Amino acid sequence: MADQLPLSPLAPPNFPELPHVRGVRLGTAATAMKYQGRDDLMLAEMPSGASVAGVFTKSKTASAPVDWCRKVLSGGEALGLLVNAGNANAFTGRAGVESVENCVEAVADLLSCRPSRIFVASTGVIGETLPHARIVQELAAIRQGISDSGPANWGDAAGAIMTTDTFPKGATRTAKIGDAEVTIVGIAKGSGMIAPDMATMLSFMFTDARLPADILQALLADTVDSSFNAITVDSDTSTSDTVLLFATGMASGQPEADGPGDHLLADFKAKLGEVAMDLAQQIVRDGEGASKFVSITVTGAEDAVAARNIGLSIGNSPLVKTAIAGEDANWGRIVMAVGKASERADRDRMAIAVGGVTIAEYGAAVDDYNETPVAEHMKGADIDIQVDVGVGNGAATVWTCDLTHGYISINADYRS
Amino acid sequence: MADQLPLSPLAPPNFPELPHVRGVRLGTAATAMKYQGRDDLMLAEMPSGASVAGVFTKSKTASAPVDWCRKVLSGGEALGLLVNAGNANAFTGRAGVESVENCVEAVADLLSCRPSRIFVASTGVIGETLPHARIVQELAAIRQGISDSGPANWGDAAGAIMTTDTFPKGATRTAKIGDAEVTIVGIAKGSGMIAPDMATMLSFMFTDARLPADILQALLADTVDSSFNAITVDSDTSTSDTVLLFATGMASGQPEADGPGDHLLADFKAKLGEVAMDLAQQIVRDGEGASKFVSITVTGAEDAVAARNIGLSIGNSPLVKTAIAGEDANWGRIVMAVGKASERADRDRMAIAVGGVTIAEYGAAVDDYNETPVAEHMKGADIDIQVDVGVGNGAATVWTCDLTHGYISINADYRS
Repeated sequence: MADQLPLSPLAPPNFPELPHVRGVRLGTAATAMKYQGRDDLMLAEMPSGASVAGVFTKSKTASAPVDWCRKVLSGGEALGLLVNAGNANAFTGRAGVESVENCVEAVADLLSCRPSRIFVASTGVIGETLPHARIVQELAAIRQGISDSGPANWGDAAGAIMTTDTFPKGATRTAKIGDAEVTIVGIAKGSGMIAPDMATMLSFMFTDARLPADILQALLADTVDSSFNAITVDSDTSTSDTVLLFATGMASGQPEADGPGDHLLADFKAKLGEVAMDLAQQIVRDGEGASKFVSITVTGAEDAVAARNIGLSIGNSPLVKTAIAGEDANWGRIVMAVGKASERADRDRMAIAVGGVTIAEYGAAVDDYNETPVAEHMKGADIDIQVDVGVGNGAATVWTCDLTHGYISINADYRS
Repeated sequence: MADQLPLSPLAPPNFPELPHVRGVRLGTAATAMKYQGRDDLMLAEMPSGASVAGVFTKSKTASAPVDWCRKVLSGGEALGLLVNAGNANAFTGRAGVESVENCVEAVADLLSCRPSRIFVASTGVIGETLPHARIVQELAAIRQGISDSGPANWGDAAGAIMTTDTFPKGATRTAKIGDAEVTIVGIAKGSGMIAPDMATMLSFMFTDARLPADILQALLADTVDSSFNAITVDSDTSTSDTVLLFATGMASGQPEADGPGDHLLADFKAKLGEVAMDLAQQIVRDGEGASKFVSITVTGAEDAVAARNIGLSIGNSPLVKTAIAGEDANWGRIVMAVGKASERADRDRMAIAVGGVTIAEYGAAVDDYNETPVAEHMKGADIDIQVDVGVGNGAATVWTCDLTHGYISINADYRS
């Protein structure tokens, strides 16, 4: 089961030191609805006036919590976030909607606010009714133990939302808005059923910046596109994918921005992107069964979207991913994956490099191709693939992991 | 390596008895260019006036032999077909084109015809130059041993074109055109890099019917769509996919058809479809590492294309395929795969049945769902999944296999 999986060999050495985000308070609890001996419920409390932005799965079978978040996002304000792990509350029909309503009303009572200020997310098994009574009965205890965000409870919160994850995921940056310094902290979960389609997996980011919901939404949408939407573990897209960004507005002395494009926000936007990218890459490094972290850069495509699609075609190809697992520089499979991507590519102008070594150009292997340095690169944990498809100036990078016996073992046995 | 892989547990008990197709002559030889101790080269000779139809990969990185076949197909006439296994002659640049020209000219010399009457196909490793001299030097020997098609040499021919296949694939039907009885025989190879995109893998079908190339082409295109285009092993599309249908015109007493829609051809078309479907399903049964043969029927979709796409989304999902490998009726993953298919589906009207047992309807598990008969069904070798997506009348069936440790073992070690 999830909590018994061995730590990913690509895991970072430790959970990062995450600072307090002014106004954010966190608590966790254990419902034992699926996992034993660990927390599986997380509550985040925001101060009155906190704004929120969200990006959700494009799945046609989205979960009940995703439906709820979409509905209340238009209010632009968030006072609470409740997340449970072990049950996705997806494909649960009318009972699933009632579970969300029960949870949301209980949190709203606790925080003395309207239900529309409460956001929820659930992750785990699809198709089983959520035992919401167990969640509700833990809320008072969580509230008692809730405290200002800080190193210890960021780690607890990131741990409480894990399913098949083998390590908790967190990241932080500080940014300048005018002369004010603001903090951004994010946590995420995700390991399997990871393929980008607007948002992937669960991630919650918090900042003490003061930003109205419309600006926050524009910044988040851009950020997600180049981070969470540029990773894939297994080409499968979750019913529950949710990225939420909360802004408490409690940083002091921060000037107002005119809109998402305001120069004042340039540094904030860059740092938000770094937090999202850091979390997204941690998800790939915890990809089910992953033994290699793979960066795929595509250049020379018709445009950036085409480059992304070609990169994902390579990153999702079972034959490319198993070759990487076997430490085999089987670049013919890269050629195959470019060919099937349904995007323009000029076979006879294509070039491929692995680990910085040019293997093929002008549609064939280079004359003096020496496989030795490439074979050496394939033995490492970080694999670098570059492909130029020879038709234009579009470029993109995507990140993925290899496909190993570990993925089969985890997914032929674990009901997620 | 390929020839040492254990026989697929889904293999048919034996290679079928395949009859002589009047006018077709077959020979095989061993070049030892990659495989030792087995034939890897096949030559088929057709009589003067034989017509030909072809469907090829949509890959943007198609192989040199595919380029050649596309070019000469417009002539509509075929006197020879040369196929080698072990080297795909794909992504081989100018050298690849020269290899094709060398082979084609040598066969044309042998058969005293124009090069444009010779078709070629290569399957195996991508990116390595084809040692065409080895092929050419075997041609005279093949020609000496060539003989009328019949049980023994159909088996030899099907064996000579295999790569990671664990069994040779053949199928036959007889059809009536008017009062004339005609024979259809097909052989195929394919095991990995199998995903439909117009044509998949290599398949060669032969008939003694007398049909002009334009009618043959129309019949073949229709046939491929519901057979080879409805299977998937691993979502990867080959650079070399080729389906060719040859008609020798040597059946006696056959009336002329006016066009592909002529009633006279109804039985022929049906039987051609059966041969293609038989071969396509054999390819799935030889899917790399396959332990289960999976039929997925989608109903209630917007149209047949949408139904096919939803079926392929299910059939290509690593999470669905690993659940099947684990004999786990994890229908939540089917919900997920419908959701990500980018086709219309009404979550709250969806129904799912496995092994004929309804598991979910109206967007949630049925009240009295009893997993016992479903778990029993999952232990079998033939798995049946039915999904109704509740929006229209579109229906389609696709076939796939499960994703097992065997797939990883084969592809992390074998350079194909």
